[in-house]
Amino acid sequence: MKRLAVSALAALLLGACAGPEPRVPELRGTGDLGVVVERASGRVALVEHSHDTVLGRVEGLGDLSHAAIVFSRDERYAYVFGRDGGLTKVDLLTGTIAGRIVQAGNSIGGAISEDGRLVAVANYEPGGVRVFDAGTLAPVADIPTGSKVVGLEDAPGNRFAFSLYDSGEIWLADLGDPASPRITRFAGIGRQPYDALVTPDGRYYIAGLFGEDGLAMLDLWNPEAGVRRVLQGYGRGEAALPVYKMPHLEGWAVADGRAFIPAVGRHEVLVVDLATWTEVGRIPVHGQPVFVMARPDGRQVWVNFALPDNGVVQVIDVRSQAVVHRLDPGPGVLHLEFTPRGERVWLSVRDADQVQVYDTRTFERVSTLPAEKPSGIFFTTRAHRIGL
Amino acid sequence: MKRLAVSALAALLLGACAGPEPRVPELRGTGDLGVVVERASGRVALVEHSHDTVLGRVEGLGDLSHAAIVFSRDERYAYVFGRDGGLTKVDLLTGTIAGRIVQAGNSIGGAISEDGRLVAVANYEPGGVRVFDAGTLAPVADIPTGSKVVGLEDAPGNRFAFSLYDSGEIWLADLGDPASPRITRFAGIGRQPYDALVTPDGRYYIAGLFGEDGLAMLDLWNPEAGVRRVLQGYGRGEAALPVYKMPHLEGWAVADGRAFIPAVGRHEVLVVDLATWTEVGRIPVHGQPVFVMARPDGRQVWVNFALPDNGVVQVIDVRSQAVVHRLDPGPGVLHLEFTPRGERVWLSVRDADQVQVYDTRTFERVSTLPAEKPSGIFFTTRAHRIGL
Repeated sequence: MKRLAVSALAALLLGACAGPEPRVPELRGTGDLGVVVERASGRVALVEHSHDTVLGRVEGLGDLSHAAIVFSRDERYAYVFGRDGGLTKVDLLTGTIAGRIVQAGNSIGGAISEDGRLVAVANYEPGGVRVFDAGTLAPVADIPTGSKVVGLEDAPGNRFAFSLYDSGEIWLADLGDPASPRITRFAGIGRQPYDALVTPDGRYYIAGLFGEDGLAMLDLWNPEAGVRRVLQGYGRGEAALPVYKMPHLEGWAVADGRAFIPAVGRHEVLVVDLATWTEVGRIPVHGQPVFVMARPDGRQVWVNFALPDNGVVQVIDVRSQAVVHRLDPGPGVLHLEFTPRGERVWLSVRDADQVQVYDTRTFERVSTLPAEKPSGIFFTTRAHRIGL
Repeated sequence: MKRLAVSALAALLLGACAGPEPRVPELRGTGDLGVVVERASGRVALVEHSHDTVLGRVEGLGDLSHAAIVFSRDERYAYVFGRDGGLTKVDLLTGTIAGRIVQAGNSIGGAISEDGRLVAVANYEPGGVRVFDAGTLAPVADIPTGSKVVGLEDAPGNRFAFSLYDSGEIWLADLGDPASPRITRFAGIGRQPYDALVTPDGRYYIAGLFGEDGLAMLDLWNPEAGVRRVLQGYGRGEAALPVYKMPHLEGWAVADGRAFIPAVGRHEVLVVDLATWTEVGRIPVHGQPVFVMARPDGRQVWVNFALPDNGVVQVIDVRSQAVVHRLDPGPGVLHLEFTPRGERVWLSVRDADQVQVYDTRTFERVSTLPAEKPSGIFFTTRAHRIGL
């Protein structure tokens, strides 16, 4: 009882000084919190996945048509990267904006350093990477590139890796001394890198190429060896169908020593042996895969699809490497996110204005949350993962 | 300013009703919190690893001479399993005891279910596993075994795996329906299992044997195949020296597709290929290894040792599989814990009454915290990992 009284009082006081859209701040853990992007309205819904509820909403985040989100190392704050160059720090406990800057004219995403002290943003215009203090959002470093920057990822050792779309380069920036980044440039890595990922173990940075086939891979344990090409056939060149949407790379699933990768333009998920980086299998699926994501225990891989098949989700059993289940959540399944240990998965179903929550063993829908044109779903556990 | 005023007020009110040793509860994230066991005094220190400070202490936890700790899925509560059968739920935000029961006469550890709703305890006396509601600590299920229970681990699918010391069995308990566990028994798995682990991917349950050599392994993806023996030579039989302390199994490091395992009685860390479960190398180290733990990015493995070498810690570089650094933190290094992404490691140095924090790249000591005879260190990020 006293606890509630205190929270309510705190709410009034905080509400009075905490900026737009305050909600009752309660003393609570933050390990089960998350953010759902409500793309059309430039706001996010704050959610929790212990009881599957919406805790509040935060408006005024600008253009979220290609929003990326990372979390502070204490899992209290979300950093929202807007398409319009806005960087907003959202307090998940008070439901308020703790800081906001517009740091460039046109941005494509960001990352947070291993130690949680630096937030980096990849910019198209002006092309480059800007680095900010995670606490204050004060500028720390500016890395102009003369090119659109894509595929910005954090890497172990307080490094950031990113790709230059126009000049076909990968840069590795060591921010051990934040004020003066040490840059290692890798040129001629391939035409028009368009996205990238860091493998979940933090070892490999891999860029997809729009201008040619194959993937550019940098071994972060051995950058001296340079960037090498893997999966030569991977890309639009192999497409048997028009490519409706280049698949996301960050969603790559790694399970049982293998990577499960969305084929480009084909109704297939590729299976790649991570020891040799060679393709060892292809799994036929319902449409052109967009996100191919492994349940945290690696036993299942869940796949959503590009138009016209984006109303379907399929589940691949990793042991048998076959599709074992199909869901029809409704049109516009844009993203999925597993609970930290994988017992549940959340799906954003844009055209139903819903987030649907499924039990990953029974495949039953256990909850439905209202959300306005939801796109990305991000849980705070990402704060403790590499390359997310 | 108002935030502080509110916190202070909340502190007074909460303090008045929150039980022993309340501390100022502030609205804060819980992703950077942890617990350090102060073994001799039956209490824990509450810590945070963003600024390396002690936030408070909680007393009255009974016999912590072999304490294990798990965390609630929201990362607010720690469940402390005492040697005396006590199970205490500690609120990390208020620094108070949220619940405590003495559920058996003699206990050896516990686990929390994948969904975070069940806490299970392994008991020697009476032998068996008892399962409690994680919210209320109300009893949910009782699984008598007629044997001392060791190596209780959570497994994907709301299952618990554990081993029977006296009868040489492994039991797999499915708590999909918590009130009526479905038990699968595996008999004749080997003499006197004494500890166990679940691999970080949640796939394998592996028990160490005190009564004979080799390890008993259950593939949780394929339990129908039964328990098989791996690493036949592993155990005291190979010991070239008296065994001062059987190494902990839960600390097993998995990195780069290999497991790094403490040899028993030898000054070696064994390297095991996880595809074949065969030994592929041995790394000479300073003493008899106790904990062999991988930095979260898998690039380093840190090792501490049994008497008389427990004042030394060595660091193995996974790529070269050689020791690259030695630290001398002081006598009685009992445990180590990495920050979630691995930029720092915390060491408990019992005889110095210190917890020492090191940068894992420069190997410099960056912080020292006072702690009374510290043993285990546990960070809340464990809430989101399998088998911890």
